[in-house]
Amino acid sequence: MVYEKIKTLSAAMEKDMVAQRRDFHKYAETGWFETRTTSIIARHLTKLGYEVLLGEQVCDKDARMGVPSEAALAAHYEKALEWGADPEFAPFTKGGMTGVIGILRCGEGPTVGMRFDIDALGVIESDEPDHRPMAEGFASVNRGAMHSCGHDAHATIGMGVATVLMAIREHLHGTIKLIFQPAEEGVRGAKSIVEKGHLDDVNYFLGSHVTGKKPEDPTVIIPGSTGSLATCKYDVTYRGKSAHAGGAPHMGKNALLAAAAAVVNLYAIPRHGAGASRINVGKLVAGSGRNVIADEAFMEIELRGATTEINDYMIQYAEDILRNTAAMYGCSCEMKLMGAATSNESDPDFCEYLRQLWHEKLGFPVSEKLMLKIGGSEDVSYMVNRVRENGGKATFMRAMTITTGPAHNRRFDFDESLMVPTVQAFCAAVADLLK
Amino acid sequence: MVYEKIKTLSAAMEKDMVAQRRDFHKYAETGWFETRTTSIIARHLTKLGYEVLLGEQVCDKDARMGVPSEAALAAHYEKALEWGADPEFAPFTKGGMTGVIGILRCGEGPTVGMRFDIDALGVIESDEPDHRPMAEGFASVNRGAMHSCGHDAHATIGMGVATVLMAIREHLHGTIKLIFQPAEEGVRGAKSIVEKGHLDDVNYFLGSHVTGKKPEDPTVIIPGSTGSLATCKYDVTYRGKSAHAGGAPHMGKNALLAAAAAVVNLYAIPRHGAGASRINVGKLVAGSGRNVIADEAFMEIELRGATTEINDYMIQYAEDILRNTAAMYGCSCEMKLMGAATSNESDPDFCEYLRQLWHEKLGFPVSEKLMLKIGGSEDVSYMVNRVRENGGKATFMRAMTITTGPAHNRRFDFDESLMVPTVQAFCAAVADLLK
Amino acid sequence: MVYEKIKTLSAAMEKDMVAQRRDFHKYAETGWFETRTTSIIARHLTKLGYEVLLGEQVCDKDARMGVPSEAALAAHYEKALEWGADPEFAPFTKGGMTGVIGILRCGEGPTVGMRFDIDALGVIESDEPDHRPMAEGFASVNRGAMHSCGHDAHATIGMGVATVLMAIREHLHGTIKLIFQPAEEGVRGAKSIVEKGHLDDVNYFLGSHVTGKKPEDPTVIIPGSTGSLATCKYDVTYRGKSAHAGGAPHMGKNALLAAAAAVVNLYAIPRHGAGASRINVGKLVAGSGRNVIADEAFMEIELRGATTEINDYMIQYAEDILRNTAAMYGCSCEMKLMGAATSNESDPDFCEYLRQLWHEKLGFPVSEKLMLKIGGSEDVSYMVNRVRENGGKATFMRAMTITTGPAHNRRFDFDESLMVPTVQAFCAAVADLLK
Amino acid sequence: MVYEKIKTLSAAMEKDMVAQRRDFHKYAETGWFETRTTSIIARHLTKLGYEVLLGEQVCDKDARMGVPSEAALAAHYEKALEWGADPEFAPFTKGGMTGVIGILRCGEGPTVGMRFDIDALGVIESDEPDHRPMAEGFASVNRGAMHSCGHDAHATIGMGVATVLMAIREHLHGTIKLIFQPAEEGVRGAKSIVEKGHLDDVNYFLGSHVTGKKPEDPTVIIPGSTGSLATCKYDVTYRGKSAHAGGAPHMGKNALLAAAAAVVNLYAIPRHGAGASRINVGKLVAGSGRNVIADEAFMEIELRGATTEINDYMIQYAEDILRNTAAMYGCSCEMKLMGAATSNESDPDFCEYLRQLWHEKLGFPVSEKLMLKIGGSEDVSYMVNRVRENGGKATFMRAMTITTGPAHNRRFDFDESLMVPTVQAFCAAVADLLK
Repeated sequence: MVYEKIKTLSAAMEKDMVAQRRDFHKYAETGWFETRTTSIIARHLTKLGYEVLLGEQVCDKDARMGVPSEAALAAHYEKALEWGADPEFAPFTKGGMTGVIGILRCGEGPTVGMRFDIDALGVIESDEPDHRPMAEGFASVNRGAMHSCGHDAHATIGMGVATVLMAIREHLHGTIKLIFQPAEEGVRGAKSIVEKGHLDDVNYFLGSHVTGKKPEDPTVIIPGSTGSLATCKYDVTYRGKSAHAGGAPHMGKNALLAAAAAVVNLYAIPRHGAGASRINVGKLVAGSGRNVIADEAFMEIELRGATTEINDYMIQYAEDILRNTAAMYGCSCEMKLMGAATSNESDPDFCEYLRQLWHEKLGFPVSEKLMLKIGGSEDVSYMVNRVRENGGKATFMRAMTITTGPAHNRRFDFDESLMVPTVQAFCAAVADLLK
Repeated sequence: MVYEKIKTLSAAMEKDMVAQRRDFHKYAETGWFETRTTSIIARHLTKLGYEVLLGEQVCDKDARMGVPSEAALAAHYEKALEWGADPEFAPFTKGGMTGVIGILRCGEGPTVGMRFDIDALGVIESDEPDHRPMAEGFASVNRGAMHSCGHDAHATIGMGVATVLMAIREHLHGTIKLIFQPAEEGVRGAKSIVEKGHLDDVNYFLGSHVTGKKPEDPTVIIPGSTGSLATCKYDVTYRGKSAHAGGAPHMGKNALLAAAAAVVNLYAIPRHGAGASRINVGKLVAGSGRNVIADEAFMEIELRGATTEINDYMIQYAEDILRNTAAMYGCSCEMKLMGAATSNESDPDFCEYLRQLWHEKLGFPVSEKLMLKIGGSEDVSYMVNRVRENGGKATFMRAMTITTGPAHNRRFDFDESLMVPTVQAFCAAVADLLK
Repeated sequence: MVYEKIKTLSAAMEKDMVAQRRDFHKYAETGWFETRTTSIIARHLTKLGYEVLLGEQVCDKDARMGVPSEAALAAHYEKALEWGADPEFAPFTKGGMTGVIGILRCGEGPTVGMRFDIDALGVIESDEPDHRPMAEGFASVNRGAMHSCGHDAHATIGMGVATVLMAIREHLHGTIKLIFQPAEEGVRGAKSIVEKGHLDDVNYFLGSHVTGKKPEDPTVIIPGSTGSLATCKYDVTYRGKSAHAGGAPHMGKNALLAAAAAVVNLYAIPRHGAGASRINVGKLVAGSGRNVIADEAFMEIELRGATTEINDYMIQYAEDILRNTAAMYGCSCEMKLMGAATSNESDPDFCEYLRQLWHEKLGFPVSEKLMLKIGGSEDVSYMVNRVRENGGKATFMRAMTITTGPAHNRRFDFDESLMVPTVQAFCAAVADLLK
Repeated sequence: MVYEKIKTLSAAMEKDMVAQRRDFHKYAETGWFETRTTSIIARHLTKLGYEVLLGEQVCDKDARMGVPSEAALAAHYEKALEWGADPEFAPFTKGGMTGVIGILRCGEGPTVGMRFDIDALGVIESDEPDHRPMAEGFASVNRGAMHSCGHDAHATIGMGVATVLMAIREHLHGTIKLIFQPAEEGVRGAKSIVEKGHLDDVNYFLGSHVTGKKPEDPTVIIPGSTGSLATCKYDVTYRGKSAHAGGAPHMGKNALLAAAAAVVNLYAIPRHGAGASRINVGKLVAGSGRNVIADEAFMEIELRGATTEINDYMIQYAEDILRNTAAMYGCSCEMKLMGAATSNESDPDFCEYLRQLWHEKLGFPVSEKLMLKIGGSEDVSYMVNRVRENGGKATFMRAMTITTGPAHNRRFDFDESLMVPTVQAFCAAVADLLK
C-alpha cells in the first residue's frame, strides 16, 4: 500500500532531515542571497532524477522585488562557495537569481504544485548558551542572517517530499512540481515565479508553514489558512534642497518637514469600512545637521488590507499623500516597491478533503480547526490565487509544533519532529490526487 | 498770499466738515456698497465745477476684488436711496461700481493725485451711551457697518480739499486729481483704479490716514509711512464627498480633514530670511454633522510679507500647500482672491520737502518722525508704487489726532479737529507743487 | 387560541396605527423635546390601564446626554401644547424629562421588557410633491425635525403592543414593561433609563428597528442583530486668545491652528488590531475674521469601536490628543459628552427560538438570516447588555419593509404595512414567554 | 611711539603666524577636544610670562554644553599627545576641560578682555588638489575635523596679540585678559567661561571674526556687529513602545509618528511680530524596521530669535509642543540643551571710537560700515552682554579678508595676510585704552 510506503520512507529519513535542517540553519542566507541553499537543493533533485529549473528559468528577473545591490550579492557569492555551495549549480544564482524548481512527470493526469520557501531573516541570532542552535553548534555563522521563521525546515521538508515521491512514482499519474522559492521574507519572491507562468498549469497547490502550538495540543497539521492581509512595501525617498537654517530658511526645500507631514497624513488615511487596513512608517531618516535645512528624507513604509481591494485603497491613498506632500514642499518623491502580497484564502472544500484524507490514510487526529486565521502577510498568496483563478484547488497548511520564542525573534527554535509528518501529509495528498 | 487763503478757507469750513463727517458716519457703507457716499461726493464735485468720473470710468470692473453678491448689492441700493442717496448719481454705482474721481485742469504743469478712501468696516457699532456717536445721535443706522477706521473723515477731508483748491485755482498751474476710492478695507479697491490707468500720469501723489497720538504730542501730521506689509487675501473652498462615518468612511472625500492638514502646513511655511512674513487662517468652517464625512470646508486666509517679493514667496507656498493638500484627500480646491496690497514706502525726499513746507507755510511744528512705521497693509500701495515706478514722488501721510479705542473697534472715535489742518496740509502741498 | 387572538386584534388595528404613525410624523419631535409624543403615549397607556411612569421616574436626570438648552426646551414646550400635547401629561416632560414606561403585572412569572424609541431627527423634510408625507398631508410641521429613521413607526408599534397585551392579559403569567425611550438619535437616552434600574429585573428583552428590504424578499422580521459599534460623541471647544494677525501674531493663542492639529492627529490614531475602529470630526467651526488670530474653535467628534474595549481605546487616545494639542498652543479644551452606546450582540439562542416561534405560531416564513450585521451604533445596547449581564436573554430585531430613500435622508419613507406583523411578533413572544 | 612699535612687531611676526595657523589647521580639533591647541597656547603664554589659567579655572564644568562622551574625549587625548600636544599642559584638558586664559597685570587701570575662539568644525576637509591646504600640505590630518570657519586664525591672532602686548607692557596701565575659548561651534563654550566670572571685572571687551570681502574692497576691519540671533540647540529623544505593525498596531507607542507630528507643529509656531524667529529640525532618525511600530525617535533642533526675548518665546513654544506631542502618543520626551547664545549688539560709541583710532594711529582706511549685520549666532554674545550689563563697552569686530568658499564649507580657506593688521587693531585699542 502506497500510504504505508510513504509513512515508512519518511520515518526512515528523520535523522538525515534533522542534519539537513541544521546545515541550512548554520549557513542561513537571506532573500536573493540563497546561493548555497539553492545549489544544495539542486544537487539533491538532480541526483534523484528530477527535471531541474534554475536561474532565469525560475523567476522573472524584472518581477523580483527588493533585490540587494550587485556588490552585496557578489560579496556573498564568494562566501557561499567558501561555505560549501555546490560549484556546479551556484553560478546559476549569480545576480540574485536564486530558487530552484524540480519537476517529475508521471504520465497523464493533473498537476500538483508545492511551494517550499528557503530564505532566512535579517536577524542577529542569539548567542546565549541556552539557545539550542548555540548549544548544539548549528547557530548561524552568517552574522545578521538567521532562520528565525522556520524556512530551514520548509526547505528540508521539500527535499524529503522529493525523495519520497520519486520512490512511489509508479503509483502516480500526473505531474509534480516542487517549487523552492527564494525571498519570501519581505514578500519579494513569489510574484516573480508566478509571472514566469509556473502556476498556470497547476490543478492542486499546497504550501505549508511551521506554526507554534501548545504541548498538550495533538494537532499535527491544520489543513488551511484564512485572514492573511494583502500588503505592499515601499522605500520612499524625498529630495529637496539644503540651505542655512539661520540665514536663508526660505532658500531650502525641506525634505524632513515634508516627510514629517507625509507621516502624519499617512496614519490619517481614513479607515476602510469593509475590513482591516494597516499603515506603518517603520523607519524615517532625514537631514544632515542641526543648522541645515534637510535635503533628503528616507522612509520605509508598509500598507496592508484585509482584502486586495482594501490594500489597493491604501496604496492609492498613500501614493496621493506621498506625492502631494513632497510637491507642496518643493521636493521630489521616489517610491520603490520592495515587496507585495495579495490576501488569500485556502479552499474550504480542499481543506476538508485533506483533513479526512490524513485521518483515514495516515491516522492523524482530526484537526479541530479547518483553517487557521493569520494576521500577517505571505506571498504564497500569488500562487494560491493564480491556481484558484484557473479553477484549481489550493491551500496553505499550518504544520503544528512546539516553538521557542516567537517567529522573527533571535531565539526562535522549534521541535524538529514535525518534519516527518509534514512530509507524509504532502505525499499522501499527492498520492491520492494522482492515484 | 495763497497759504493764508488756504488757512482761512479751511478754518471756515470746520462746522460743515464736522456735519458731513457725521452724516457719513451715520450712513456707513462697506466696500462696493458706497452708493450713498459716492453720490453725495459726486454732487459736491459737480456743484464745484470739477470734471467728474463715475461708474466704469473709475474702476476696472474685472480688477475689483471681494465684490459682494449681486443680490446683496441690489438690496443695499434700495436702502441707500431711502437714506438719501442722490438719485442723479446713485445709478452709476449699481453692481458695486462705486467710487468717484474729480479732475480740475489748470493749464500747463504737473499732475497731483490725491487718494481719499470712503468705505466703512463690517463692525457692529457700540450702542453704549458713553460712545459719542451714540450720545450725539450719529451712530450708524446701517447695522453691521461702521466707520471704525476714520474713512468718514478721509472722505470729508477730500471734499474740503476740493472746495479749497477750486477757490485758489488761479494760483495753480497743472492738473488736480481727487480720487475717492471704494473698498479699501480688505484691500480690494485700489488696484482696480490703478488698472484703469488713473495713476499713470500722476507726478506727485498724496494720501493720508487718521492715526492716534498722545494728548501731549504736538504733531499735526507725519509726512510719510514705511514698513507696510504686502498682502494677499484668499477665500478657499475645499469640496469632497460625504459618506457615513460609521459604515463607509472610505467612501468619503474628507474636506474637513484636508482643510485641517492644510492649516497646519500653512503655518509651517518656512520663515523667510530676508524679512517678516505672515500667514493667518482667520476662519474655518467645515462639515455638516457629527456622523457624516465632511464634504465642504471654507477658509479665510491672508498672507503678508515685508516686501512684495516675500509676499509672493508666501503666496506661492500657500498655493502649493492648498492645492496639494486638497489633492491628497481627493478634494477640489477653489481659491478666490479677495484683496491684495503691495508693500510700499513713502519717498523720503518728498516727505522731507513736505515737513519743511508745512512748517514754513502753515506754521506746523516740525514732526519728530519723518515716516511712521506701520505693521498692517494698505492698498494705497498700488498707487504709491505706480507713481514712483514712473519717476514721480509719492507719500502716505499720517494725520495725527486723539482717538478713542483702537481702529476697527466698535467704540472707535476721534477728535474731529484734525480735519481742518489735514485739508491745509494737502492744499499747501498742491499750491507749492503747482505754483 | 392566544396566537389567533393576537393576529386578529393586530390586524384590526391597522387603520388606527397608520393614522397614529402619521400623526407622530407630522408633529415630529427631536430628542428630549418629545413632549407631545410622550403625552399621547401616556394617555393611551393610562386609558388601557397600565401603571404609567413619567418624568423623573423614567430617566436618571443626570445620566441624560446631549440635553438641549432650557430656553430651547421651554420654547418647544409651548409649541407642543399648541400642537395638541395632552395637558395632563405634558408637564412631566418639562426640562427635557421625556419618555414614558407602561407596566402590566400579571402575577408570578418572568419579566419581559420591550423598548420603543420615539424621537425624530434634526432633518428638514423634503417638500417635493412626490414625497408621500407631502402629497398626503402628514409631512412634518416642525421645521428641522423629521421622522426619517422610522421611530414614528416604533412608537406606534409600542402602542399597538400595549393594546394587544392588555387584551390577552389573562393568558399571561409575569410582568410586562413597555419602555418608550426618548433621544435615541445621537445615542443620548437609553443610558439614563438603564441607570434608573428599569432593566435590572428584566428576564427577556426585545427591541426592533424598521429596516429596508428588496420587494421580492419575503422576510417579515430578522430575529436579531450583530456587529453594532460602541460609540462616544463629544462636543469639543478650544479657547485661546485673539490678536492682530499682521501686527502681533505671537500675542495670540490660536485655537483654529490647535483644532486643525488635533483633527489631523485624531484621524492618525493607530488602528486597533482586534477589530474596527472609527473616528470622525464631522464639524469644525473656528475663528471670527481673516486678519484675527482665532480665539475659539468648536468640533463635533465621534468615536466608534467594534467592541466596547476598542471604543475605550479610541476615547482614551482622543482625549490625550485633544488635551495635549490644546495645551501645546496655549488653549483650553472643554470636552462635553453628547452621546454614547456600547457594542452589543443579540442572544443567538433566543433569536433561534423566536425564528421558530414566529414560523410555528404566526406562519411567518423562516428568516434566512438569524441576525443582521449592522455598521452603526444604537443605544439599545445598554439595555441588551444589562439584561444579558444579569443572565437574561435579549435581542434587537429588524422589522423588514420596503423603504424610500436611505434612513436619515429627507425623503425617507416606508411601507406602513410592516406595523401589524411587528406587533404580532412582539406579542407572540410575550405570550409564549409568559404562558 | 607705541603705535609704531605695535606695527613693527606685528609685521615681523607674519611668517611665524602663518606657520602657527597652518599647524593649527593641520591638527584641527573640534569643541571640547582642543587638547593640543590649548597646550600649545598655554606653552606660548607661559613662555611670555603671562599668568595662565587652565582646566577648571577656565570653564565652569557644569555650565559647558554639548560635551562629547568620556570615551571619545579619552580616545582623542591619546591622539593629541601623538600629534605633539605639550605634555606639561595637556593633562589639564582631560575630560573636555579645554581652553586657556592669559592674564597680564600692568598696575592700576581698567581691564581689557579679549576673546579668541580655537575650535574646528565637524567637516571632512576637501582633498581636491587645488584646495590650498591640500596643495601646501597643511590639510587636516584629523579626519572629520576642519578649521573651515577660521578659528585657526583667531587662535594665532590671540597668540600674536599676547606677544606684542608683553613687548609694550611698560606703556600700559591696567589689566589684560586674553581668553582662548573652546567650543564656539554649536555655541557651547562661552557661557561656561562667563559663569566662572571671568568677564565680571572687564571694562572693555573685544572679539573678532574672519569675514569675507570682495578683492577691491579696501576695508581692513569693521569695528562691530549687529543683528546676531539668540539661539538654543536641543537634542530631543522620544521613547515609545514597539509592536507588530500588522498584528497589534494598538499595542505600540509610536515614537516616529509622535516625532513627525512634533516637527510639523514646531515649524507652525506662530511668527513673532517683533522680529525674526527661526526653527529648524535638522535631523530626525526614528524606527528600526518597516513592520515594527517605532519605539524611538531622535531629533536635532535649533531655535533662534532676533532678540533673546523672541528666542525665549520660541523655546517656550517648542517645549510645549515637544512635551505635549510626546504625551499625546504615550511617549516620553527627553530634551538635552546642546548649545545656546543670546543676541548681542556691539556698542556703537565704542565702534565709532575704534574706527577713528585705527584710522589715526594705524592709518587704516575708515570703514564704510560701522557694524556688520550678521544673520547667524555667536556665543561671544554672553561675554559682550555681561560686559555691557556691568556698564562696560564691548564689540565684536569683523576682520575682513578674501575667502575661498563659504564658511563651514569643506573648501574654506582665506588670505592669511589679514592676521597682522588684526593683531595691530587689537593692540592699538589696548594701548589707547590702557595708556
